[in-house]
Amino acid sequence: MKLTKEQIKEIRDQQTQQNKTKRVTVPELESILFEAMPALDHGFVRVIDYMGDDSSIVQSARVSYGKGTKQVSSDSGLIKYLMRHWHSTPFEMCEIKYHIKLPIFIARQWIRHRTANVNEYSARYSILDKEFYLPTAENLAAQSSSNRQGRGDILDDKQAKEVLELLKNDAEQTYNNYETMLNQRYDGSTIDENKKGLARELARMNLTLNTYTQWYWKTDLLNLMNFLRLRADSHAQYEIRVFADIMLDTLKRWVPITYEAFMDYRVGGTEVSAKGKVIIQKLIKGEDVNIDNSGLSKREWNELMLAFDLKDKLI
Amino acid sequence: MKLTKEQIKEIRDQQTQQNKTKRVTVPELESILFEAMPALDHGFVRVIDYMGDDSSIVQSARVSYGKGTKQVSSDSGLIKYLMRHWHSTPFEMCEIKYHIKLPIFIARQWIRHRTANVNEYSARYSILDKEFYLPTAENLAAQSSSNRQGRGDILDDKQAKEVLELLKNDAEQTYNNYETMLNQRYDGSTIDENKKGLARELARMNLTLNTYTQWYWKTDLLNLMNFLRLRADSHAQYEIRVFADIMLDTLKRWVPITYEAFMDYRVGGTEVSAKGKVIIQKLIKGEDVNIDNSGLSKREWNELMLAFDLKDKLI
Amino acid sequence: MKLTKEQIKEIRDQQTQQNKTKRVTVPELESILFEAMPALDHGFVRVIDYMGDDSSIVQSARVSYGKGTKQVSSDSGLIKYLMRHWHSTPFEMCEIKYHIKLPIFIARQWIRHRTANVNEYSARYSILDKEFYLPTAENLAAQSSSNRQGRGDILDDKQAKEVLELLKNDAEQTYNNYETMLNQRYDGSTIDENKKGLARELARMNLTLNTYTQWYWKTDLLNLMNFLRLRADSHAQYEIRVFADIMLDTLKRWVPITYEAFMDYRVGGTEVSAKGKVIIQKLIKGEDVNIDNSGLSKREWNELMLAFDLKDKLI
Amino acid sequence: MKLTKEQIKEIRDQQTQQNKTKRVTVPELESILFEAMPALDHGFVRVIDYMGDDSSIVQSARVSYGKGTKQVSSDSGLIKYLMRHWHSTPFEMCEIKYHIKLPIFIARQWIRHRTANVNEYSARYSILDKEFYLPTAENLAAQSSSNRQGRGDILDDKQAKEVLELLKNDAEQTYNNYETMLNQRYDGSTIDENKKGLARELARMNLTLNTYTQWYWKTDLLNLMNFLRLRADSHAQYEIRVFADIMLDTLKRWVPITYEAFMDYRVGGTEVSAKGKVIIQKLIKGEDVNIDNSGLSKREWNELMLAFDLKDKLI
Repeated sequence: MKLTKEQIKEIRDQQTQQNKTKRVTVPELESILFEAMPALDHGFVRVIDYMGDDSSIVQSARVSYGKGTKQVSSDSGLIKYLMRHWHSTPFEMCEIKYHIKLPIFIARQWIRHRTANVNEYSARYSILDKEFYLPTAENLAAQSSSNRQGRGDILDDKQAKEVLELLKNDAEQTYNNYETMLNQRYDGSTIDENKKGLARELARMNLTLNTYTQWYWKTDLLNLMNFLRLRADSHAQYEIRVFADIMLDTLKRWVPITYEAFMDYRVGGTEVSAKGKVIIQKLIKGEDVNIDNSGLSKREWNELMLAFDLKDKLI
Repeated sequence: MKLTKEQIKEIRDQQTQQNKTKRVTVPELESILFEAMPALDHGFVRVIDYMGDDSSIVQSARVSYGKGTKQVSSDSGLIKYLMRHWHSTPFEMCEIKYHIKLPIFIARQWIRHRTANVNEYSARYSILDKEFYLPTAENLAAQSSSNRQGRGDILDDKQAKEVLELLKNDAEQTYNNYETMLNQRYDGSTIDENKKGLARELARMNLTLNTYTQWYWKTDLLNLMNFLRLRADSHAQYEIRVFADIMLDTLKRWVPITYEAFMDYRVGGTEVSAKGKVIIQKLIKGEDVNIDNSGLSKREWNELMLAFDLKDKLI
Repeated sequence: MKLTKEQIKEIRDQQTQQNKTKRVTVPELESILFEAMPALDHGFVRVIDYMGDDSSIVQSARVSYGKGTKQVSSDSGLIKYLMRHWHSTPFEMCEIKYHIKLPIFIARQWIRHRTANVNEYSARYSILDKEFYLPTAENLAAQSSSNRQGRGDILDDKQAKEVLELLKNDAEQTYNNYETMLNQRYDGSTIDENKKGLARELARMNLTLNTYTQWYWKTDLLNLMNFLRLRADSHAQYEIRVFADIMLDTLKRWVPITYEAFMDYRVGGTEVSAKGKVIIQKLIKGEDVNIDNSGLSKREWNELMLAFDLKDKLI
Repeated sequence: MKLTKEQIKEIRDQQTQQNKTKRVTVPELESILFEAMPALDHGFVRVIDYMGDDSSIVQSARVSYGKGTKQVSSDSGLIKYLMRHWHSTPFEMCEIKYHIKLPIFIARQWIRHRTANVNEYSARYSILDKEFYLPTAENLAAQSSSNRQGRGDILDDKQAKEVLELLKNDAEQTYNNYETMLNQRYDGSTIDENKKGLARELARMNLTLNTYTQWYWKTDLLNLMNFLRLRADSHAQYEIRVFADIMLDTLKRWVPITYEAFMDYRVGGTEVSAKGKVIIQKLIKGEDVNIDNSGLSKREWNELMLAFDLKDKLI
């Protein structure tokens, strides 16, 4: 991740602001405000603004006149209760805003979370930076043979090198031709004074999907957790998980009580179906249970056993 | 509007907070933060928290690294442009949270705006305050004869008095019976030690629709303006307009540039249909135009003439 | 539930329609289309329209050119997989529309599900029917002593009778005064020719919360299941559960494969927290586990044991 | 646009379905159901399903027991009234589902309309078709010099040819390398038996943004009109307008009364600001008005004059 001198100065200017407010503040989050935290080779996550803290959840759940907090212990109990029983609206009372730089093919996954507010850098209006994502060798995985949308083993060195070569060359070539069509370099300089440039809204179609874009992305705490639950999960694509992991850390700084409940009930928890419950009961009671009398498919059986770390029962 | 001593203290405690933050702040809004601004006879509007200011709109529209503001004049130009051309997403980047006390029949109108976050005081869980809305005499209007969902003339004194009497007596009686069924007074004291109380979730059904409820209500700036455009409008029911007018003032304090554009392009503006445009053109050119060759219904014709204050053309 | 002759005729007229379509149809659901299925004393649920069936979920999940169905068995497997792994968007591809008549205090709970489309009968515009909900004796429960938002034992006969009397009298009296203020009976006849009527938008505030209202309510299948999961649950208020149970039956008729997966994975299933997983593992392995070393609160412990029907472990 | 034999057969199979239903049907729309209507060089628009018709809007606005229609003339009056006064919820009671094939850079614009349901063909799971958008010569426009996000004159023949050459070569080369990395051709055949293929979720990043994707896209009538209002507008990018125009035609077939009101009040209409209203009034009254005393910027002045086709007043 490289920032221009001007960008670094703009970030510093914001970080040295000292404003007074009657609103609740979160020093742990303030300490990283505006900072560009690197993600992948050229991306970043920046926290730009936030509203509320753990006490705000309690405050609105109680519809109280003052601050939510009575005492930390009872606040914590209430937040856990709300999380456990899917009383979700109080979590909507906190809000956070990020500035994110990310590859377009990841942006396309990300945008499927529709409940956020988004302003993306416009390639109709401006020229995109000359930056594209190239995976490190250990992230160049082969197609999984068991999971149609997953990754398998890492490619061997030779093939990895070939793949990287192809990705790099194609991205550079298509970007160069993007500039040629625009008749303009990414720094704004004109290439040939005697030529017109193709409209930006057209030229952009020549870029590859690993080109970086950026956006402001704002969401409430509930929908942030919905996003993180899916995208910080081990089944999520590695490239989006890198961003989700950084955001998980900002969650911890921002609302530590909620973070703990989230990790316990959502991220670390599991769901058990009606049929699965019967099997677990039988296992606890020491009764005989096997896949044939379980009503589960093999896949489901294994998912259940893995959820409870019962590896000896995998089939 | 009456607040208990404890509520007043809770509000004061929040108002005397002095926190430091790197976030943007709005002193004009901070000066009324947490204050209970009276609405109708027992209601209020309180601003609890906010995120962003005018510069945040510019910042996200430009997806910039620093603050949005280059200079106020160019920010103002951009905000007006965004408003005029319905580029709505940058306005979603600001957020505000209110604590509102309002009659239930108004809450039922209000909640139809689905894009906000809401936590309402639960009458399943708690006992509602003994407060109900009684209109002032000048707001006791007869049914409009021309508009099925509007108001006509004010009732004469005698009838107004009768109506108020009925409203008052029924609200008090149903509230008293609510307490009787709960076997509990609104202050929490038990009425008859030898009796059980009906479940709160059932007893509440006996209350009249002018009983006050309260909620935390949080929305982004775009949806706040959508709400205000409809509810601060002269066609809105008076009782919700009272709240909208107070919130319009908070809008002015919070984002003055946006407020100005909003008043010019939305609240003070009008829409003209394709057929209407032809009529306006002809009027400007001094051509003959009348309802018969206009293609408009009488109602539509009059709406158009009123929009441009052409009262001599009403029919 | 009483319908007027005209309403019965209107329903019959729709039910005898015989249209041809190339769209997918669901005969099991068509057979109850438009029928007013009674709910509580005066309410009903009517299915007005629907879009899609089980095969539509498969079709859109596969983004296929033809019908979704390859064969029922593989469709069923895919739908179960989607449900289990929270791949929710294909379930949004089916849509259903209801006409519901329900008490206002239940409508206020219901409307908190924001993702549906709603048109409610307007009491600003029209006069509400003279119908209010009165619970049967076995539903007149006392406030629960253990759960602040639940019900406990049923009231004894004498107190139940008193409560019903109060509810009935207050609803009738406030409705009569509603008519008096409107200067109009519910059948539209004027009461006193020499008087004006109070505006409908004001008079309605005198009605009690058990008065019936009605609305058209349309939602996609995913959000219908979200609604049913919460409202057909044993913790939901009885009065909304009555409606949810009827709708659960329409779900079964409409999309039987999805219904089965929904009952298995959502309604009949349970969630286990990270801490809970460890306890279940230990129980299965026969290790010693008790609340003291569990990290759970007493409430949480009991919820976990109940979820797996381990009543001997309740404390 | 080319369809495989199997796809053509699947479409025909659906079109020859003859189902009976009691639901409202729209023969005009049924006649094009499932048909792939070509858009751009390889894209298409297909209507897959729909719910409701013009009468459904009236039905839900009236919360009626029977069909909405009393008589066409009064239905039409009501629909126009609803459209004019932004009573938007009744329009949400109709729903439509499309299958769309479109270039990725257009899909990225399209998805910004968040209120629709979407299932996109997954390039994590499957291999994308070898199809990319190449503009025709007359659509190869230069960057506009006056509007940063618009198009200016068409490129001259020589430059157009160069641009097309670059677009074509880059798309083919990146697609070929996509296959090389996958170690698989788009028809599924393996390239080199001794090699692994790169995971599909990674290989896709090498594709250019003019590659075609496809999705199922479902929305209610209100949000369809919001989409069309922006995307069938002359300021929208040509490539998305092509799709919007086709969908505008499906709107006309589906709900002809609503379509007419939509064209009159939204598409063909205009908005006038508070300041603009004063200017129009003065123009009608023959008073002197010019930009200096108007309070408008030059840009705003010209937008106003153009809206009313007053070309002699442009400055």
